[in-house]
Amino acid sequence: MRTKVAIIGSGPSGLLLGQLLTRAGIDNIIVDRVSRDYILGRVRAGVLEWGTVGLLEQAGVAARMFAEGLPHDGYSLAFDGRDHRIDLFALTGKRVMVYGQTEVTRDLMDAREVAGAPTIYEANHVQIFDFDGGNPYVTYEKDGVTHRIDCDFIAGCDGFHGVSRKSVPEKSIKTFEKVYPFGWLGILADIPPVSHELIYANHPRGFALSSMRSETRSRYYIQCELDDKVENWSDERFFDEFRRRLPAHHAEALVVGPSFEKSIAPLRSFVAEPMRFGRLFLVGDSAHIVPPTGAKGLNLAASDVYYLFNGLQEYFAEKSEAGIDVYSERALSRVWKSVRFSWSMTTLMHRFPDTGDFGQKIQESELDYLIHSKAASTAMAENYVGLPY
Amino acid sequence: MRTKVAIIGSGPSGLLLGQLLTRAGIDNIIVDRVSRDYILGRVRAGVLEWGTVGLLEQAGVAARMFAEGLPHDGYSLAFDGRDHRIDLFALTGKRVMVYGQTEVTRDLMDAREVAGAPTIYEANHVQIFDFDGGNPYVTYEKDGVTHRIDCDFIAGCDGFHGVSRKSVPEKSIKTFEKVYPFGWLGILADIPPVSHELIYANHPRGFALSSMRSETRSRYYIQCELDDKVENWSDERFFDEFRRRLPAHHAEALVVGPSFEKSIAPLRSFVAEPMRFGRLFLVGDSAHIVPPTGAKGLNLAASDVYYLFNGLQEYFAEKSEAGIDVYSERALSRVWKSVRFSWSMTTLMHRFPDTGDFGQKIQESELDYLIHSKAASTAMAENYVGLPY
Repeated sequence: MRTKVAIIGSGPSGLLLGQLLTRAGIDNIIVDRVSRDYILGRVRAGVLEWGTVGLLEQAGVAARMFAEGLPHDGYSLAFDGRDHRIDLFALTGKRVMVYGQTEVTRDLMDAREVAGAPTIYEANHVQIFDFDGGNPYVTYEKDGVTHRIDCDFIAGCDGFHGVSRKSVPEKSIKTFEKVYPFGWLGILADIPPVSHELIYANHPRGFALSSMRSETRSRYYIQCELDDKVENWSDERFFDEFRRRLPAHHAEALVVGPSFEKSIAPLRSFVAEPMRFGRLFLVGDSAHIVPPTGAKGLNLAASDVYYLFNGLQEYFAEKSEAGIDVYSERALSRVWKSVRFSWSMTTLMHRFPDTGDFGQKIQESELDYLIHSKAASTAMAENYVGLPY
Repeated sequence: MRTKVAIIGSGPSGLLLGQLLTRAGIDNIIVDRVSRDYILGRVRAGVLEWGTVGLLEQAGVAARMFAEGLPHDGYSLAFDGRDHRIDLFALTGKRVMVYGQTEVTRDLMDAREVAGAPTIYEANHVQIFDFDGGNPYVTYEKDGVTHRIDCDFIAGCDGFHGVSRKSVPEKSIKTFEKVYPFGWLGILADIPPVSHELIYANHPRGFALSSMRSETRSRYYIQCELDDKVENWSDERFFDEFRRRLPAHHAEALVVGPSFEKSIAPLRSFVAEPMRFGRLFLVGDSAHIVPPTGAKGLNLAASDVYYLFNGLQEYFAEKSEAGIDVYSERALSRVWKSVRFSWSMTTLMHRFPDTGDFGQKIQESELDYLIHSKAASTAMAENYVGLPY
């Protein structure tokens, strides 16, 4: 097989890149080691920056999002037993869209099917070759047969554990990492959310987040120990703990119900530099991970796609390498800003075991200053709705 | 002797409080263990918030400051070899005044002399008593004789090492502290400053600050090891190191000349809570210390004086305890905001030995975001010019 762009990974970044390329007449093949259903079964974030919304619109996959998604004009920072609203729209003129990553993925998969662009699911032993030379190719095994895709470029959209970044020689890549000393225990349940906007709560017992997928499906999280186990948390215990971390009027409004998903995730910041190696581009989670506070992961993947798509389009339409040559630099500049914001919001809202009395007072002073300063609230809001591409 | 307010310490906070009280007809006595000349010989900060300027005006000691002080509309953040101006006036509508603390002190001493208000210098073995009861008093020894001042209130303006905070039972006070893993090596020299505005430089070799006392007297600092010694630093070595940390065009503009003061100071954040104990009030450095980055120390002492003076005036004029009852809470609310800002600016501009690669990139991202975001620049500027009282 031959294609222009071989895309490794059929998550939202690979699919979005594929969809933009297909609409621009640039043929591409997506290869993924797992199945379509497996991908759609993964539970992921659900807050889209307005820039991401625009990019999905540009990709022609926005109809269901606009019909079913929930535009949010603000969110609450809760601490000291009270709510403090960050009015995103008043502060920045922008909003965010609450629409699950799984839904984005489904819309993109459906659009890809309609466009007839090829995706190879359940491709075993995917490998990438010769991206340092002029003739890169991808191989995989399926039904006992080894296949080969020759291409002009490879887009590594296969996440943190994927083969793309791991195929780069160690000496060519520099990584930056921070592991946080706690995890998030999250549940999904078909219960109305405790508030129609998100609540980020900093409580002496730890962080809590009230989020949602829709008006009838809630996604709640609490900060937990890194070595805690899901088995330790009955729904009842979860809701009891979650309730304790919310301001009283929210705690009273909490409706409980059986969860259908419950999991513990560690929190990590990770960046690999650069994001281009010859004819291989790293995109999204394959190059960087952020803690979920502030919901930047998917949005950062979208901005990577934006820069890469524009570079590739320039390359194929105008034979100019200018756009792909600056891909890594442009993407990383925005990546680090989002990594900084995610780190800073995580630091602001969680209780850290080794903070000490001084650090704890600094955190409280930061929150106190933030909600009373229009400039500081605006800085937080402009990051939350997404910095410009 | 009997007075209404016994003030321990003849630094700027004690003098400013005394001056405001005297002008309001509330008699007060200042007691200090050292001499007038010793106090005037201490080298201290020199950037006044506009609120401090206003308070000095209210105290009737602003004439020389307005004549000789240098109003600054902005300062430079230097990193990556370049200058990035924070335009205080454009961002906040306010400026700061560069006028040495020593000059403020001198103006206040002169005004006190004119007003005929008593100061007892070189008072040995100052002690404070019974501030928990209704009849507080101060004792000291002078020329072999023990003196006693009975008073309604005691204002502890005697700094971090003074007797006032140390006289409070340990169980009644909670302290918060952070010691930074570096010091500032500073010099004073009669040379024109490298730039007419302050330059805060973050350089791989460490922080540097180009500051001034006047158009012909410069105050320069470089970050150094905590255990470094002044003896290791000839003027030549200092200027060589200072020059290396500045952007090229500033380095080229550097005029050198013999220093007449050179010292190393550790950097510390410290807060004691509460700031009132019965009839004793802690004011300024006796209750809190900030690292010099951002020049908040003297300004924070001034806002303490503002709250305390208003409380005392209310007490003596209207027999209302409302103002003195909220002194500690009001003062501490602003103290923590300034402590937070000083900590944050220190963290942003210095190189920390244990930051690691990730932390270093976060610092660089923070600087990059800060200079490109009007909201973030405004947040920094509004703290620098001083949050409202």
